[in-house]
Amino acid sequence: MADKKDEKTKGSTTLEDLRRRINAVNHDLLALLNQRAEIVQEVREYKERNAIEIFIPTREQEMLDGLVEANPGPFSDDMIRHLFREIFRASLHHMETDKKQSLRVARKPGAPTDVIKVGNREVGREPIIIAGPCAVEDEDQMERVAGRLAELGVTFLRGGAFKPRTSPYSFQGLGEEGLRLLEAAGKRHGLKTVTEVVDTRTVDLVAKHADMLQIGSRNQLNYELLKAVATTGKPILLKRNFAATLDELIRSAEYIVAGGNENVILCERGIRTFARETRNTLDITAIPLLRDLCRLPVIVDISHAAGRRDILPALARASLAAGANGIMVEVHPNPGLARSDAQQQLDLNQFEQLLGGLTPDLLDLRPPAAQQSAE
Amino acid sequence: MADKKDEKTKGSTTLEDLRRRINAVNHDLLALLNQRAEIVQEVREYKERNAIEIFIPTREQEMLDGLVEANPGPFSDDMIRHLFREIFRASLHHMETDKKQSLRVARKPGAPTDVIKVGNREVGREPIIIAGPCAVEDEDQMERVAGRLAELGVTFLRGGAFKPRTSPYSFQGLGEEGLRLLEAAGKRHGLKTVTEVVDTRTVDLVAKHADMLQIGSRNQLNYELLKAVATTGKPILLKRNFAATLDELIRSAEYIVAGGNENVILCERGIRTFARETRNTLDITAIPLLRDLCRLPVIVDISHAAGRRDILPALARASLAAGANGIMVEVHPNPGLARSDAQQQLDLNQFEQLLGGLTPDLLDLRPPAAQQSAE
Amino acid sequence: MADKKDEKTKGSTTLEDLRRRINAVNHDLLALLNQRAEIVQEVREYKERNAIEIFIPTREQEMLDGLVEANPGPFSDDMIRHLFREIFRASLHHMETDKKQSLRVARKPGAPTDVIKVGNREVGREPIIIAGPCAVEDEDQMERVAGRLAELGVTFLRGGAFKPRTSPYSFQGLGEEGLRLLEAAGKRHGLKTVTEVVDTRTVDLVAKHADMLQIGSRNQLNYELLKAVATTGKPILLKRNFAATLDELIRSAEYIVAGGNENVILCERGIRTFARETRNTLDITAIPLLRDLCRLPVIVDISHAAGRRDILPALARASLAAGANGIMVEVHPNPGLARSDAQQQLDLNQFEQLLGGLTPDLLDLRPPAAQQSAE
Amino acid sequence: MADKKDEKTKGSTTLEDLRRRINAVNHDLLALLNQRAEIVQEVREYKERNAIEIFIPTREQEMLDGLVEANPGPFSDDMIRHLFREIFRASLHHMETDKKQSLRVARKPGAPTDVIKVGNREVGREPIIIAGPCAVEDEDQMERVAGRLAELGVTFLRGGAFKPRTSPYSFQGLGEEGLRLLEAAGKRHGLKTVTEVVDTRTVDLVAKHADMLQIGSRNQLNYELLKAVATTGKPILLKRNFAATLDELIRSAEYIVAGGNENVILCERGIRTFARETRNTLDITAIPLLRDLCRLPVIVDISHAAGRRDILPALARASLAAGANGIMVEVHPNPGLARSDAQQQLDLNQFEQLLGGLTPDLLDLRPPAAQQSAE
Repeated sequence: MADKKDEKTKGSTTLEDLRRRINAVNHDLLALLNQRAEIVQEVREYKERNAIEIFIPTREQEMLDGLVEANPGPFSDDMIRHLFREIFRASLHHMETDKKQSLRVARKPGAPTDVIKVGNREVGREPIIIAGPCAVEDEDQMERVAGRLAELGVTFLRGGAFKPRTSPYSFQGLGEEGLRLLEAAGKRHGLKTVTEVVDTRTVDLVAKHADMLQIGSRNQLNYELLKAVATTGKPILLKRNFAATLDELIRSAEYIVAGGNENVILCERGIRTFARETRNTLDITAIPLLRDLCRLPVIVDISHAAGRRDILPALARASLAAGANGIMVEVHPNPGLARSDAQQQLDLNQFEQLLGGLTPDLLDLRPPAAQQSAE
Repeated sequence: MADKKDEKTKGSTTLEDLRRRINAVNHDLLALLNQRAEIVQEVREYKERNAIEIFIPTREQEMLDGLVEANPGPFSDDMIRHLFREIFRASLHHMETDKKQSLRVARKPGAPTDVIKVGNREVGREPIIIAGPCAVEDEDQMERVAGRLAELGVTFLRGGAFKPRTSPYSFQGLGEEGLRLLEAAGKRHGLKTVTEVVDTRTVDLVAKHADMLQIGSRNQLNYELLKAVATTGKPILLKRNFAATLDELIRSAEYIVAGGNENVILCERGIRTFARETRNTLDITAIPLLRDLCRLPVIVDISHAAGRRDILPALARASLAAGANGIMVEVHPNPGLARSDAQQQLDLNQFEQLLGGLTPDLLDLRPPAAQQSAE
Repeated sequence: MADKKDEKTKGSTTLEDLRRRINAVNHDLLALLNQRAEIVQEVREYKERNAIEIFIPTREQEMLDGLVEANPGPFSDDMIRHLFREIFRASLHHMETDKKQSLRVARKPGAPTDVIKVGNREVGREPIIIAGPCAVEDEDQMERVAGRLAELGVTFLRGGAFKPRTSPYSFQGLGEEGLRLLEAAGKRHGLKTVTEVVDTRTVDLVAKHADMLQIGSRNQLNYELLKAVATTGKPILLKRNFAATLDELIRSAEYIVAGGNENVILCERGIRTFARETRNTLDITAIPLLRDLCRLPVIVDISHAAGRRDILPALARASLAAGANGIMVEVHPNPGLARSDAQQQLDLNQFEQLLGGLTPDLLDLRPPAAQQSAE
Repeated sequence: MADKKDEKTKGSTTLEDLRRRINAVNHDLLALLNQRAEIVQEVREYKERNAIEIFIPTREQEMLDGLVEANPGPFSDDMIRHLFREIFRASLHHMETDKKQSLRVARKPGAPTDVIKVGNREVGREPIIIAGPCAVEDEDQMERVAGRLAELGVTFLRGGAFKPRTSPYSFQGLGEEGLRLLEAAGKRHGLKTVTEVVDTRTVDLVAKHADMLQIGSRNQLNYELLKAVATTGKPILLKRNFAATLDELIRSAEYIVAGGNENVILCERGIRTFARETRNTLDITAIPLLRDLCRLPVIVDISHAAGRRDILPALARASLAAGANGIMVEVHPNPGLARSDAQQQLDLNQFEQLLGGLTPDLLDLRPPAAQQSAE
């Protein structure tokens, strides 16, 4: 139908004419695309009613073959194949986006960060500090740490009872005894406790003793464990795997929320890169990105990110400045004697100095990155 | 206009009906998309005739705004924006693809690998071995290496005269004197010579002495140097930067070919990853991928990939098995005394053993990966 | 005691004199170091007899302080601290090396690769091919794959029944029903079966149905799962985590062997890097390095390394050329219809072509890298 | 000589006895090591007087062979070899450390950060903001940016005239015309100008027009270019290569300082990792580490690190909180129309908002990381 117009204008056409014609085609395309979307929607409903598999790849192939056969050009057959794949994918993407926006952990535009209650603390509303030794070693150690933390106004005490260790011959934690020491120290000093869980079979045991369960970096992609901790209802501290994308982290959180447990806190802890000067590379961009994509609070484990003591004050400041909802840091009464991660744990005085560097401006919790963003 | 049909079919429609309707819409879309492409083509020609900038982003924005305003649904405004961006991008991609397929270094479907002549050697037709010390150090060293290489049937002699070194205080090569020693050793034993060029100002000097110019890993993205070596007409050995994507490598080759020099050989040499056991991680997949994407021969510098001696025989075999057109390896008469890269250079006997592991099957040059691929 | 000599020689000394004196000091140092080692050994025995913690960091600090205080120079205090830390570390390293060499999975110099028997197949003696679909989907699919594999002389059938998936809403495998379909298909065609285990609680179930248990990439560092599979006695296929160092992989194998199960096969499957063209980057150097460090057979999962079909033949050839004891590859009767990993599975004809590219030279299993190495 | 004592104590020895004996041996070792260092020093002086190559690897090999032959145990021959290599290396390391501490760019303990004067601005004393478009495009663009920057109190204007581009067919910058537009805009508004130099042959041209010369990420390892900019005496902004270690960056700075130009500012700008959500991964730890290792100011190019606009405010805050001496950010009057890097440039209002998020605490320049560190 456009042929006659084409003939007429070819010689004397102006840019304005051409643009008008593109606009007209655009609006015809708009109508057709929506019409197509309506029919696809009908197909979907039909299939759902009749319990038929929604996506059938061969069907798509048949459509493409028919279109290419009928293609008059100037688009090449390849380009037509490409464009219709885009249109098909757009439809799928549309459904996917529906699903993704309906990821239960996704942040709805303008929505605030979730507030996770742990005892009387509200994670997500005010920045938190989680501190304590890498591993629970004995009562004296825990008493010295917990006492000082309480004096300094810190309210979360960490300490590993089940330690995943690279070598089967390394100290693997005190197990249940460690859980008891941690719980007792927390109770004596009014601190909420956090400890790692490493096996579906001991989830209930850990949940009995601790206020918050930690999924370690090595287990972020251990989906059976994620499903198991979901059933406890306890707040979960989900650490990012050292090579996971943000999307993988968010979907791991979704496993827990889909399992019925909304109390999830994300934790960036450094990623593996070519860099040699630190144990991992702290991915500072993960903080604003996660806060934008996800409604859950985000904290930073600066100790594992750095793997060394000297730069921890700078990383604590940077994390909060980037919008983190808190930090986790390893503190030991005598790091030189620690049974694991000796080189990255702060002693109690060093920890106090670190706290001193967290100026009020940094502790005044930033609004979500999305809101302070430039776009 | 589709409303009436919709009404009618909603109740008793079958899947077959719905599919027929999708097919009809598909073919209407096909016609409109091609019609749009024709008008876009006219716009482009008009602009070229009138020297107007082709891509005007504000124009795209205006179109999108108009379409969203007119959008009746069910696609959301965001989805319409997305779909039309896809259509606009498809047009741009079409032009881009035109350009990319017309990247002069791209392999046309079914086309053979270029054969680069260096003297009487045909790189790309038969696998080549390039061997020699990291740096040219003195006449005796070069004589011992060149003599043995010639005996072993190797025909390419390498040796650095200008050495890029991390520290300003390290040995930086013998410079012009090194070029002369390399050239003389090559001439005495009938070997073709390869050496690195590091500065636009010394390109002509190096070209005067060497049969092939090497662009080192640090300079793959030094576009001014690429333009400069293009003008020499000499065969260029272009090493991949240790963190470059394959696309970046191919486009660096395009700089040389666009500069009028078709004689380019690509060289994979390992990339930086978290792995610690080797100096770099040999990206073996780069071999079939580069051979598929690009018409130029591809060789592998196994010495820099590994940074250690013991695994070189395995890497030499793997590289050829993956379809490489040759390998480069550092050989020194006395590696323990080498002034650079001592730990990765083979001595002459070790090199002979490595050659012994290259069974005839591996030296029978594979067809391009594209042809032996499973698709 | 050396003072007088010093005085005398200062003027007229020759290089030979100086070297003689260094030699003398060297031999005095040799005696003292061994003497020190003997006493350290005594301390260790004493502590073991008396159940005292062996390593006391404060003790080391005291010794260093004392030595620095007594240091006459010319070595700076820092250098003395450094040198003695080296000597202390050498002692510790000595004990560590003892432990490491006594890692049960370490390859003793000159020792052959372990042969793992799976039915009548001897993994480690002859190269193996493991093939089959990503996920077990239904009986027809398994029948078509298993039948063709048997015809082609392949003897290992893979297929996932428990699938770890990034999204909680993706197809998670058929579970126990999948195990039964896999087992039945294997039995009908005389194939040994391999399938993944993902939870300590289902280890026994999987072990009941499959001939070999696979630890997937996400679970390589899930030490509780490693301990659990050790107890089954079944051959274990241990896949490398996508960001694990080789040392971490070897120590994960040690968990299984320390748990009483010697039948472990390592599997390289690609690592995460900046590269975008493939799903992962196949770390080809892992093959000779693992074979050198460890006595266990090493195979390569080329499908997950590549994430795309077209380069699989090149990767299969390269893996065997580098010394791999076998390859694993995903094969599906109709990849376009696969419920997971559609883009990387070969169809049955493509798989047959891939096998055709494995020339006899490549299937003639290489001796361990260590033996063919250049050193 | 120690034998008799050994005999006597073996039975009734106490831990205290054993420790006394270790202490005695330690002090004998101390004396011998220093004695050895003195002789090595003499050898060095002798060789320097007589112009003999200092390090002769075969000599080391001979000594090791002799020591192993004489080794009575209990240390294994391997351990003796290892220990003496450590001692030899300690000597070399000693010389190296001498050299490294005498790296002219190293920070001496307690020393302040260098202050680099650019006009009346003192980089290193107060945090700086460098802003402006990716590329200089035309006079109107530069006028709009420069005018607004001046209003906002920013004093450094950036803009590329020579643009290194991945494709030879992309816009490569306006060249000399771009230099003139940049210079003029700077002069009109009292801003200091920064622009990139890409070729040794155009260094003088760029130096004639700009107040500060930028070495881009692709050229950080282009040592000939580093030597060339050293000769200009101009302040140099040295950007880290996207895959360079911190040591490589520091040594690149050393090239410039060794070339006689002390005015160098380091710039972190993101590294290549597996992460996909951002163009690069901002290495926030580089800031405290570089400030600790090096006496030069350190700034952060947040735009290239992120490659997207929305997280720039968070990265600006984090960079300053971590101790950066300033930030660089791309600002364009109409980013949608930019000829390069459109997606990462801020418009003028977005930039003003970003500045608003830099609270006084963050602009109160932190002391060097070393001083605020916990150790």
